[in-house]
Amino acid sequence: MTQYKVPVLPGDGIGPEIIAEGRKVIDAAGERFGFDVEWIEYPHGADHYLETGELISEETLKELSGYPAIYLGSIGDPRIAPGVLEKGILLTARFYFDQYINLRPIKLLEGVWTPIKDKTSKDIDFVVVRENTEDFYIGIGGRAKKGASKDLLEVKRTLYSAKFGLDIETDSEEIGYQIGLISKEGTKRVIEYAFDLAENRKKHVSSVDKANVLSDIYGFWREEFNAVAEKHPGFTTDFNFVDAITMWFVKNPEWFDVVVTPNMFGDIITDLGAMIQGGLGLAPGGNINPNGTSMFEPIHGSAPKYKGQNKVNPIATIWAGAMLIEQLGEKEAADTIVNAIQKNILDGKVKTYDMGGKNTTSDVGDDIARIIKGE
Amino acid sequence: MTQYKVPVLPGDGIGPEIIAEGRKVIDAAGERFGFDVEWIEYPHGADHYLETGELISEETLKELSGYPAIYLGSIGDPRIAPGVLEKGILLTARFYFDQYINLRPIKLLEGVWTPIKDKTSKDIDFVVVRENTEDFYIGIGGRAKKGASKDLLEVKRTLYSAKFGLDIETDSEEIGYQIGLISKEGTKRVIEYAFDLAENRKKHVSSVDKANVLSDIYGFWREEFNAVAEKHPGFTTDFNFVDAITMWFVKNPEWFDVVVTPNMFGDIITDLGAMIQGGLGLAPGGNINPNGTSMFEPIHGSAPKYKGQNKVNPIATIWAGAMLIEQLGEKEAADTIVNAIQKNILDGKVKTYDMGGKNTTSDVGDDIARIIKGE
Ligand SMILES: CC(C)[C@H](C(=O)O)[C@@H](O)C(=O)O
Ligand SMILES: CC(C)[C@H](C(=O)O)[C@@H](O)C(=O)O
Repeated sequence: MTQYKVPVLPGDGIGPEIIAEGRKVIDAAGERFGFDVEWIEYPHGADHYLETGELISEETLKELSGYPAIYLGSIGDPRIAPGVLEKGILLTARFYFDQYINLRPIKLLEGVWTPIKDKTSKDIDFVVVRENTEDFYIGIGGRAKKGASKDLLEVKRTLYSAKFGLDIETDSEEIGYQIGLISKEGTKRVIEYAFDLAENRKKHVSSVDKANVLSDIYGFWREEFNAVAEKHPGFTTDFNFVDAITMWFVKNPEWFDVVVTPNMFGDIITDLGAMIQGGLGLAPGGNINPNGTSMFEPIHGSAPKYKGQNKVNPIATIWAGAMLIEQLGEKEAADTIVNAIQKNILDGKVKTYDMGGKNTTSDVGDDIARIIKGE
Repeated sequence: MTQYKVPVLPGDGIGPEIIAEGRKVIDAAGERFGFDVEWIEYPHGADHYLETGELISEETLKELSGYPAIYLGSIGDPRIAPGVLEKGILLTARFYFDQYINLRPIKLLEGVWTPIKDKTSKDIDFVVVRENTEDFYIGIGGRAKKGASKDLLEVKRTLYSAKFGLDIETDSEEIGYQIGLISKEGTKRVIEYAFDLAENRKKHVSSVDKANVLSDIYGFWREEFNAVAEKHPGFTTDFNFVDAITMWFVKNPEWFDVVVTPNMFGDIITDLGAMIQGGLGLAPGGNINPNGTSMFEPIHGSAPKYKGQNKVNPIATIWAGAMLIEQLGEKEAADTIVNAIQKNILDGKVKTYDMGGKNTTSDVGDDIARIIKGE
């Protein structure tokens, strides 16, 4: 029997409830496919932070880097200012482990209601590869006032004033600013990953940018995309401005196969993607470093108002669990979990409120585990 | 008879065709409501640029600043690199005239097909107020390599390396970067405009940001929003992360009344908004400086492949024309144009291909003009 050790961070809000179902399903798959998972629990999240003042320590990160895959619930708590936990734990982990791929399948399972007219599971079936360690997520920015950041005020003056001969008073203004940057290496590796993925799909790769306005950062992205595309002669490709792609996701999702996107735009379009595949309750994600430590999570948040009610849909987390064990090498077990999710949905008997049912979080986990074990 | 002078820039691609219909309809409204518009044509766009090398000169901008409102077709041409015309003409005008409000009604007219299930014109009826002169649209960015921009490489090293004790080679990398900034004044004025607008609607204002990640720039935005909201006790408000709001636009558009957003996120969510209101053929926009020169345009692009075919839908441009004359003070005529658009659609006889019809661009303009004149 193969043994795996998997660190698990249930996190905040509904995190522990959905993670419990994810573990249950993976354990069931282990029984059937002959592997055993030892779950190593970590307490990080809001309570731990409020008790100890620690978000996640470098020591813990080092320890976690000894494992190929981490299972994450959800992070976020209304008692704490927006961003503190998300940046201090979730983004810290993505950056620390250099999980440069955020893999988000946008797949409408059969029998799932989508808010989009006239589209079936045949039309909504693509993958978004979101860059996950650069762009506007690097956390560099600040504020400036008179004298404090002469350079930035200067560029603003140049832009507004010198260029057009206007005389705008900048000295009295306060400003907030943010810097995004992408590197050649960081851009190349994620685009290459997208092409590799498309190799076993329809060989169509779509790039997302806003190179017509944010030309410095995304002109650079486009060049790297072209450089990688040139090495893949059998593939078709297209460029999409981020504003336009939100329209096509809704109107023509069947156009897409593999979509590769800078970090921030990827954040935005995958929430929209989650909606067209039936809602956040059904959308899994993987933060992947193919040669290091990856981390799998539902893409939804911690839904504090549902905490402890055994009410929310665990499918996103269970599906993320399938991605996790696939990463560990258990491809057949992973496929079996996804098929069991599909069967649970098609049976239509055991489902949570968001899918029009009255069952609990654990009912759904039980049902999927039962299907896997063939009971 | 009131006389107006209105500069018109038909622009590229389908621009001249749709602007011709917009003028026709405004002229018809003028006949009925007793005003006359003298149209002053400007040639700026791709052809003019290719012939003369000029995008738009400061002299022209100065001249245009003598008028309260400009009518714009669409800018963009495949012969020219992405961004050159858009930045050199469209964004230059928005910045030069300090058109700090980009007003985009998201309204599903009756009888229009939306790709969203179970929503009617009662559910999709809100306004997006997009900040239009700051944020990541300021055009500041660049590239750097070893030695070229020591500071930026340094911050990156700090982030990746020093913070986590990793040793990442940054010296050999090239990077592309972009800076966004918002000012206190610039943020305050657009949020105040949104509250003023909501005063005559449902008094609900929704803010869009990504303060949990781009905390420096959008934490600043949020503070300004709160400061303005505090002065409006009778209003309800909410905060939306930009990723989440793309979901609510599709799932619960009825939640929104007035949405106020930083520039770049506004660009993204209004394309999605255009789609839920029936497509780009139906989405108008106004770039407004309440005390200066405003500019009205369809939010779609120049659709080069349809150029000269008399095929595309002119309604977005005609609707933008209604916004233009409202800005000039002709509120009744503006309402009459919007009602005539609604009647044209409900009649269902004269419509372009995107609305399932077989009529031409000018057929639709003729029909709307006819309705206005009561013929
Ligand atoms: C919680 C937040 C920091 C995160 C992000 O912006 O990446 C989330 O929206 C996601 O998409 O995983
Ligand atoms: C053409 C482009 C520069 C422009 C923008 O990004 O603002 C367009 O998308 C818009 O929304 O008006």
